[in-house]
Amino acid sequence: MTDPSSSLRVAMIGHAFMGNAHSQAWRTAPHFFALPAHPEMAVVVGRDAGRAAEAAARLGWAESSTDWREVIARDDIDVVDICTPGDTHAEIAIAALEAGKHVLCEKPLANTVAEAEAMTAAADQARSRGVRAMVGFTYRRVPAIGLARQLVAEGRVGDIRHVRAQYLQDWIADPEAPLSWRLDKERAGSGALGDIGAHVIDLTQFITGSRITELTGRLETFVKERPYAESHSAGSLGGLSGTASTERGPVTVDDAASFLATFAGGAMGVFEATRFATGRKNAIRIEVNGSLGSLAFDFEDMNVLEYFDARDDAEVAGFRRIIATESVHPYVAAWWPPGHGLGYEHGFTHQVVDLVTAIADGTDPSPSFADGLQVQQVLAAVETSSDTRTWQEIPPS
Amino acid sequence: MTDPSSSLRVAMIGHAFMGNAHSQAWRTAPHFFALPAHPEMAVVVGRDAGRAAEAAARLGWAESSTDWREVIARDDIDVVDICTPGDTHAEIAIAALEAGKHVLCEKPLANTVAEAEAMTAAADQARSRGVRAMVGFTYRRVPAIGLARQLVAEGRVGDIRHVRAQYLQDWIADPEAPLSWRLDKERAGSGALGDIGAHVIDLTQFITGSRITELTGRLETFVKERPYAESHSAGSLGGLSGTASTERGPVTVDDAASFLATFAGGAMGVFEATRFATGRKNAIRIEVNGSLGSLAFDFEDMNVLEYFDARDDAEVAGFRRIIATESVHPYVAAWWPPGHGLGYEHGFTHQVVDLVTAIADGTDPSPSFADGLQVQQVLAAVETSSDTRTWQEIPPS
Amino acid sequence: MTDPSSSLRVAMIGHAFMGNAHSQAWRTAPHFFALPAHPEMAVVVGRDAGRAAEAAARLGWAESSTDWREVIARDDIDVVDICTPGDTHAEIAIAALEAGKHVLCEKPLANTVAEAEAMTAAADQARSRGVRAMVGFTYRRVPAIGLARQLVAEGRVGDIRHVRAQYLQDWIADPEAPLSWRLDKERAGSGALGDIGAHVIDLTQFITGSRITELTGRLETFVKERPYAESHSAGSLGGLSGTASTERGPVTVDDAASFLATFAGGAMGVFEATRFATGRKNAIRIEVNGSLGSLAFDFEDMNVLEYFDARDDAEVAGFRRIIATESVHPYVAAWWPPGHGLGYEHGFTHQVVDLVTAIADGTDPSPSFADGLQVQQVLAAVETSSDTRTWQEIPPS
Amino acid sequence: MTDPSSSLRVAMIGHAFMGNAHSQAWRTAPHFFALPAHPEMAVVVGRDAGRAAEAAARLGWAESSTDWREVIARDDIDVVDICTPGDTHAEIAIAALEAGKHVLCEKPLANTVAEAEAMTAAADQARSRGVRAMVGFTYRRVPAIGLARQLVAEGRVGDIRHVRAQYLQDWIADPEAPLSWRLDKERAGSGALGDIGAHVIDLTQFITGSRITELTGRLETFVKERPYAESHSAGSLGGLSGTASTERGPVTVDDAASFLATFAGGAMGVFEATRFATGRKNAIRIEVNGSLGSLAFDFEDMNVLEYFDARDDAEVAGFRRIIATESVHPYVAAWWPPGHGLGYEHGFTHQVVDLVTAIADGTDPSPSFADGLQVQQVLAAVETSSDTRTWQEIPPS
Repeated sequence: MTDPSSSLRVAMIGHAFMGNAHSQAWRTAPHFFALPAHPEMAVVVGRDAGRAAEAAARLGWAESSTDWREVIARDDIDVVDICTPGDTHAEIAIAALEAGKHVLCEKPLANTVAEAEAMTAAADQARSRGVRAMVGFTYRRVPAIGLARQLVAEGRVGDIRHVRAQYLQDWIADPEAPLSWRLDKERAGSGALGDIGAHVIDLTQFITGSRITELTGRLETFVKERPYAESHSAGSLGGLSGTASTERGPVTVDDAASFLATFAGGAMGVFEATRFATGRKNAIRIEVNGSLGSLAFDFEDMNVLEYFDARDDAEVAGFRRIIATESVHPYVAAWWPPGHGLGYEHGFTHQVVDLVTAIADGTDPSPSFADGLQVQQVLAAVETSSDTRTWQEIPPS
Repeated sequence: MTDPSSSLRVAMIGHAFMGNAHSQAWRTAPHFFALPAHPEMAVVVGRDAGRAAEAAARLGWAESSTDWREVIARDDIDVVDICTPGDTHAEIAIAALEAGKHVLCEKPLANTVAEAEAMTAAADQARSRGVRAMVGFTYRRVPAIGLARQLVAEGRVGDIRHVRAQYLQDWIADPEAPLSWRLDKERAGSGALGDIGAHVIDLTQFITGSRITELTGRLETFVKERPYAESHSAGSLGGLSGTASTERGPVTVDDAASFLATFAGGAMGVFEATRFATGRKNAIRIEVNGSLGSLAFDFEDMNVLEYFDARDDAEVAGFRRIIATESVHPYVAAWWPPGHGLGYEHGFTHQVVDLVTAIADGTDPSPSFADGLQVQQVLAAVETSSDTRTWQEIPPS
Repeated sequence: MTDPSSSLRVAMIGHAFMGNAHSQAWRTAPHFFALPAHPEMAVVVGRDAGRAAEAAARLGWAESSTDWREVIARDDIDVVDICTPGDTHAEIAIAALEAGKHVLCEKPLANTVAEAEAMTAAADQARSRGVRAMVGFTYRRVPAIGLARQLVAEGRVGDIRHVRAQYLQDWIADPEAPLSWRLDKERAGSGALGDIGAHVIDLTQFITGSRITELTGRLETFVKERPYAESHSAGSLGGLSGTASTERGPVTVDDAASFLATFAGGAMGVFEATRFATGRKNAIRIEVNGSLGSLAFDFEDMNVLEYFDARDDAEVAGFRRIIATESVHPYVAAWWPPGHGLGYEHGFTHQVVDLVTAIADGTDPSPSFADGLQVQQVLAAVETSSDTRTWQEIPPS
Repeated sequence: MTDPSSSLRVAMIGHAFMGNAHSQAWRTAPHFFALPAHPEMAVVVGRDAGRAAEAAARLGWAESSTDWREVIARDDIDVVDICTPGDTHAEIAIAALEAGKHVLCEKPLANTVAEAEAMTAAADQARSRGVRAMVGFTYRRVPAIGLARQLVAEGRVGDIRHVRAQYLQDWIADPEAPLSWRLDKERAGSGALGDIGAHVIDLTQFITGSRITELTGRLETFVKERPYAESHSAGSLGGLSGTASTERGPVTVDDAASFLATFAGGAMGVFEATRFATGRKNAIRIEVNGSLGSLAFDFEDMNVLEYFDARDDAEVAGFRRIIATESVHPYVAAWWPPGHGLGYEHGFTHQVVDLVTAIADGTDPSPSFADGLQVQQVLAAVETSSDTRTWQEIPPS
């Protein structure tokens, strides 16, 4: 048993959008959840000393640093939380694991399958030494999503026939929206596919408890060139805003992705991810149709899960708008009374809770790096399928 | 037993908006429902011979007339369907009943309680001679409303605590919308209160099976004067459209009404009727909260009833969006497959079905003139309450 | 110019579900719309004399017949309305067109591309003789759909990037739901794909004004065998209900279809059609995302079109819930005041209006047989793609 | 100008539900907003030393105390944040103001008008010494509510005709739900009226910028006796949960309230507050109808404001579902990208931001104690009206 008074000293690498969200989670979790260990926000790492120091002050980290290697080498760091762009994940995560640090790595796990495989191998080795690794698919920890998973696990949906999932945003629908690192294949790995498609791949597999086995898909870049942002750096909000310059550069990632998939259990999947769905801001929409019931979720109304029970009397059957804010719903008991909604950042807090609990309990947190690798394999299969215009199989994990 | 091949010869008085809707119902009912008697559309009556003849041709009536008294006196007329403004209801209905004709009278039953009482007395006398009278609260016959009533009757809602009802329109929110007979107290009796408030009074009492016993209310006329319409007559669409003239006349009815009420069973009622709810076109909204469940309806999504079952597991409890288009729902089996919605006019068709069935079966159709009188008493109580700023009791029926 | 008092004598072949809907349209259109010619419901044709006679009486046709060839040969028939299963469309339609009759043919146009080509050739020849042919994609004539098409045509949506369309039903989600002709490839041609997928193929092309040029797709039959219905015939409601027998037969059509598509303008399409979406009754869902705006429609709330205008101030931008019941919306002026919803059958009435108008005006009604052929080509491409697991091109029309 | 590095040392009195929410706000505000002064969470006060110490540790306060008078007397306390039941507000707030402490007081301001008047007088005197007082109507600071207020202020709604507001909960719909201090008039002052009705009174006045001038209302207690909770104290979650004992006690507050109101500008108001709306968890619903537009809000979908603009083309007019998560919306720029929803607690964080800013700027925070007094006068008028069954005027402030 872990001593409840024990501390976990955390280093966070990167302090942009994700670093901000992770910081709020590290700060908040201990105040709402009885954690088996106390996370200490020890150090934040950034490329620029001044900006890192500013981030430390603003986000609540005791120290700042510009050298992640040095930080990872410190004896007084227990957990490394990686919030940098995808091209740096593998190097940092593997080094951290080898240094015996527990790792939380933002999604997608890496920019390539090869990197993800190396990371997973490192996580497997680290596990044997009691070191834990987790990939940050935080949307799993939205209560309504947790409830969806639970209802499937309880058999309330029956045999799953259909999974349809869309992740719709519109922040570059305007062809004059500026370039950012998120539109650069070197940094971001992929575009809508990896940035947001990865989430619905993970979520549908999580909810259904079933893996994608094959797919045929397609990527599209609608706007091939864009103006450079006046200033853009990895530490910025990632092109979510910014003024445009007159010079233009190429968009090297996909603007949108779509694919048909088969799940292990035989369900048909239809997926879509785009940053061009005008008017949709963060619409993560998932529907599951089974022989006994159906589920529907849309992050734009994130505290709600819709559920149809085919066994209800025909007279009163209908999709139920479950406001997933009851104390019986996942994570909710720690928060507010029914109907007092949670927000985007709460999923990150729940992630901290689950990670800290797993570390303290000596169990493997979920989703694992292997889960992240499998998502990466799906992403790669979509790319290959788009290039070759063929169906692709996903290797069994 | 009525001979199924027997005919009911119908005369319709008035051929404006309501006459149009009633005609569609008389034409359509025999094609979807197995009626115990066959309605024949014998004659339509209007004030102007040319327009009445045109209406007969357009709406499918065999003949036209300008003299309702003459029509009522005819031996070959069995049913009189009254679609004229409220100030004429009493005279026509009483004469028709005395002449031994079954009567369907549009709502509100009359413009005053005294008229409604006289009509109800006439209906009572006629009943003893096998003559039937019905008032046209057609919204009762929207399937989702019928289902609401059924769920209450089945005990699924438990003890009713709250009834909230709104009938929201916006067709005179513009102060320059022209005068019409519907804004003239002489013709229309009242404004939003009687025209649309009457519907939600009837519907809430129908759904709950409980009468309003007391109330305190308030009427308001926001716009006291309006331009005359270029041409306006009782036979027109009643000011729902039309061009305005430069001359102005007084609005003598209420633009909006609101009242608090008590139902016989102790439920608290809150009512509102207005033609000034910008953006709401025909929003008949009714909610019922009981100890075991709740119901919610909005005519702007008229094929849907929302239902909350408090006995559902907390994990999956939520308002169910019941699409009331299943064959088990009231009236629906005669129509289309599930999910193929019905429209506004279907309630009128169902009204014909129920009236013809009652006449053929020798039973009293519902809602009766007594029901119409009771609604009139509620309307009158709102007016008195508004004038005197006091609570008013409704006499028990 | 056609004489407004002229008649069009109509023969309807088939009197099941579609015959019922078409009959209501033929009966109703003249009462709400000023038609340039008067449709007479002359004769209904069915395989069984007794049932056809019953249908004539119930549906309002003057006569009945069991011999469509004889009916088509009659001089006093002007229009042939084909409501039979798809395997009979080609023979009847071609014969009718050759006999100089205007033809309205239910969708899908045929069960094979070859049949559809022959029908289109016949329609082309007939056109030169002033004979008109139309295929019955009635959902185009739902006002909210007509409005969607109009908003695209007005440029309000801009360059279209995404089209996602689903037609979701659940009437055979239960593996014990009985076989019907709709599950028999010989009669129905295909399953969900042709029965309902055809509608969303047509609707998305209609709304966007752009054709599908290539696709990759997949068909699935989840339940391979089902009990025979106790009795089933082409004249029944098509397996939408019925009791099951103990004997079982094979399901020879698809239960569900999904495909990715490209539109001529470069938009990405994602399509799905299924009868296994538990809880979805008739959910025709279409979303279009363009550079200037987006549209969303769901037939389960059929009077509503959602519209996002990207040019709105950011402060007040949001999807607008347009209740498409204003007099400015397509077809609506003929009906009821705003907010008084229309139903499923109104699309059929509008179809009659447009067909009669085109015949009287001597213009080609839309959608044409060529449009129906093109949809058939898309359906065939999905089948081939599913068989070969390759992308398929649609020949330009 | 306040030194940005200056500190505001805060003492919080009470650590139950509201104390928990306030603590999260004090902890969080400095990390997302550039505050002109730094709040230090100095001390939390509770009646029980052990529980207060536990609360301090859990909620992040440096110290705990059981003596609020002693705390208020301390020189090193700048702000007193009052989160206790209403019967204690006056004594603590007045003492704190007299001691020169800025005060944030939870709503309702007091349990009686007399207390609220005394508090307002104390606030007025304190203001002259530069001491600030604010009442905690936090829902004003939900971004969608702030946006509603802004749209009215910008004239987008025009002359307001109707205000309808409901605050619906269901946590005591079960007659066996136990007693808590919230059902005890001594402690809570009133029931649904003061606890939740107060919020919609404040919100509608805030959004419309107009005061309620008269009303007629009614209170009801449906369940007169309830079982005592096994244990209940002011520090508990206030009866929102708990096991029931066999002994029963009287419910001395209202279960539900409803009233009709007039706003200064002539708008008709209809209000309802209840804890018996089965299935409604925290439904704060507000609609405003004006001559140029309408607004609708429901806290159960708290990131959304619906807005109808009557000046839109009829073709595309409809209620807009504004997801109030754009950077142009109130408070949002500090948080996440569009579509990443905020939760219940964010309003409290915004309250801290506004209070700290006002203190630092030397301006009066809003809502003031005078605003709280006015709400208290409305609450008192509802009670008097319910007792006397008469309309009541609200004194002008």
